[in-house]
Amino acid sequence: MGRAPAVQPRRVLADLAELARTTGEGDGADRVAWTPGWQRGRDLLRARLAEIGLAAIEDEAGNLWGKLPGRREEMLVLGSHLDSVPGGGPLDGALGVLAGLEVLRALIEANVFPDLTVSVVDWADEEGARFGRSLLGSAAATGRLDIEAVRGLTDADGIGLEAALGKCGVDLDRLPAAPTMELDRTLAYLELHIEQGPVLEQERLPVAAVSGTIGVERFVLGFAGRAAHAGSTPMNVRHDALLAAAATALEIERIALRHDGRATTGSLAVGPGVATVVAGSAELSVDLRNADEDELARMREEVLGVARSQAAARGCELEERDLFAAAPRAFDPELVEAVRSACAEVGGREEPIVSGALHDATEVAALVPTAMVFCPSIGGRSHAPDERTEQRDLRTAIEVFGEVATGIAVGETALPGTALSSGGDRAADSPSRRAQ
Amino acid sequence: MGRAPAVQPRRVLADLAELARTTGEGDGADRVAWTPGWQRGRDLLRARLAEIGLAAIEDEAGNLWGKLPGRREEMLVLGSHLDSVPGGGPLDGALGVLAGLEVLRALIEANVFPDLTVSVVDWADEEGARFGRSLLGSAAATGRLDIEAVRGLTDADGIGLEAALGKCGVDLDRLPAAPTMELDRTLAYLELHIEQGPVLEQERLPVAAVSGTIGVERFVLGFAGRAAHAGSTPMNVRHDALLAAAATALEIERIALRHDGRATTGSLAVGPGVATVVAGSAELSVDLRNADEDELARMREEVLGVARSQAAARGCELEERDLFAAAPRAFDPELVEAVRSACAEVGGREEPIVSGALHDATEVAALVPTAMVFCPSIGGRSHAPDERTEQRDLRTAIEVFGEVATGIAVGETALPGTALSSGGDRAADSPSRRAQ
Repeated sequence: MGRAPAVQPRRVLADLAELARTTGEGDGADRVAWTPGWQRGRDLLRARLAEIGLAAIEDEAGNLWGKLPGRREEMLVLGSHLDSVPGGGPLDGALGVLAGLEVLRALIEANVFPDLTVSVVDWADEEGARFGRSLLGSAAATGRLDIEAVRGLTDADGIGLEAALGKCGVDLDRLPAAPTMELDRTLAYLELHIEQGPVLEQERLPVAAVSGTIGVERFVLGFAGRAAHAGSTPMNVRHDALLAAAATALEIERIALRHDGRATTGSLAVGPGVATVVAGSAELSVDLRNADEDELARMREEVLGVARSQAAARGCELEERDLFAAAPRAFDPELVEAVRSACAEVGGREEPIVSGALHDATEVAALVPTAMVFCPSIGGRSHAPDERTEQRDLRTAIEVFGEVATGIAVGETALPGTALSSGGDRAADSPSRRAQ
Repeated sequence: MGRAPAVQPRRVLADLAELARTTGEGDGADRVAWTPGWQRGRDLLRARLAEIGLAAIEDEAGNLWGKLPGRREEMLVLGSHLDSVPGGGPLDGALGVLAGLEVLRALIEANVFPDLTVSVVDWADEEGARFGRSLLGSAAATGRLDIEAVRGLTDADGIGLEAALGKCGVDLDRLPAAPTMELDRTLAYLELHIEQGPVLEQERLPVAAVSGTIGVERFVLGFAGRAAHAGSTPMNVRHDALLAAAATALEIERIALRHDGRATTGSLAVGPGVATVVAGSAELSVDLRNADEDELARMREEVLGVARSQAAARGCELEERDLFAAAPRAFDPELVEAVRSACAEVGGREEPIVSGALHDATEVAALVPTAMVFCPSIGGRSHAPDERTEQRDLRTAIEVFGEVATGIAVGETALPGTALSSGGDRAADSPSRRAQ
């Protein structure tokens, strides 16, 4: 009970620096999930939890939890992920985990016995960098992971997901058991993350609430033309798969602009890929995003139509292969409003941002009232060693995040669907929340 | 003395079948230069030369010669290459070498002592499949190879050209000694090759003379944009290197059509090449061909202009890196006419073809009066296991090639710049030919 204590941003910055020192300076973060670098990163979290007298508990999906008991069993969960892409940045994911840790540390140091049990969680394998399936641990924890769809995944060396998880003590077949552990009695989830985009920097704002994540359709368009000699094949008899893909990529950009969405063709694999041979095959990746589900569906339809007609115009065959899809996810309006007003008070953005990137919060929000806090990314850069945020913006964001989190923890900030709570009388809310 | 004997196409077809059996059926020809497969292919040529009592002689560049002495030291050279691309076809190169062998065999079996010395040559490394430098042996033999420009070449495994040649007994520094051996006293060079394009098949013609090879400009356009997150980066702040390259590739096609040339963008390497990341870099290969040197230069200028403006439109940097260039090369008009009339007589093409592909003949023609014979390629396909020519067309082409070659060998067909020769009185012509 008692007043919410202030978090100390400098301790979060020190932990981030320590993490960078131990798991990849120079070439960037070396914390790909299910690798020794990731385990070393988690060792820091384990050590810090031990320093404040808390056990580190791993659930069936490999998510790592630290838990500060409150007067009630119902939880506030603060989380993000320590795993990184190969050669990643120092902030993506780690900031949110270590800021969550700081909230627990501040509560303990202030001798506050919180109203709610407060947990920090390091979700396993948010990035999907090794096996291509992102949000693995958080999806498992919400019971939304299809085990059979991921069982056959292999990394670039042919090592299977099941074997890699096994080496880390995680049994793939036990993943569905993870959700029962914590989320069914969680009343709120908060995540602090860098924006990974240019909006806040361009607006010169230190912090913003996030109102949800936009929907994603990700697939591959495979164009099959006919390989032919560059010198001896007249232009008018060619079936150039690369040009069919190139024309499609340019049209896809126009489709995104028309629908106020985003479209990325980040990969184009050409076969045989030789300067003197007309391309016989071209595989173009397509990543479509839109905050509106219907608009997203329309974008997908138009892209497929354009691909079909560009393929036909060059006598190429077309194949479409789905990679990933996520519906737009709105976070909890009341929790978002609590974050928004806290941001606005310190000179942050007046309006919430819709995140173009997916986060663990996207998965958690399917079960639990959720909100996020964004801080700026210099140059919009992320997933790279030079991923940075101005120190003063980091401090502001950590403070805002800490203020909202500790406020909820001690019962000073109202939880979604309730009036301001001051006591231990909300246990009965939990079942209804599970259906949200 | 003596009438020109007829060659026997069936023996060439049998040798081709034997070569395919020993050096790669199924997955295609396995005769990449400077590899064991190539050496096995050459063993067949060595064995066949031994069967007709001729030595196989390797020159300083690794070119393999068989020589039938005539009344004069001046030579008629018949050649092509046994080396293949990985998984190549049974005919590309091998047809010309084995047809040349058959000419020597026919002369010997008919007991003809030819007017000219007649040589068959298997040029080393025509394809450049392993080290990226095509026409290596023929360029060295004409003294037109820049040793320092190739010394640093490495294969995909990092093995250097110099080491690979050394393993085959070829000393890179001795390559410039190759030309003095044979070409300075060669009066004519003939090469039979498959078309590797669709023209003859579409015209339903069995054979054609080749009047020259078109010019080539080959280079890489490197677009440097900025890698960025597919979800969090708004469309209007992107610097998408792939889209800059895609727009350029489509413009390049239009430039080729405008200039009655050919343009191929066969390779596009994207970095980081991930579906969820806006492309930060894109390297587009450009291969431009035109029979007219000025038009070729204009094509190149226009391509560079388009690339610059497409890069600028997306805020990308542009770098251009030259890979290869060859001027259009016209073959010897009189020799081409001799081949053309022989083709027309058997129902072949009335007009010579300009070859869009380069051949060893391109190099040889810089020093020696040269002509080529083309036979059709089914579907225009080459550099692939299903590279085929109808048997009846192969027979016709081998017969025409043999007729012209034996005609020159025995002095029945006039050599360029001379009246019909019937004696051994043309030795004095040789020096002037060297300057052609």
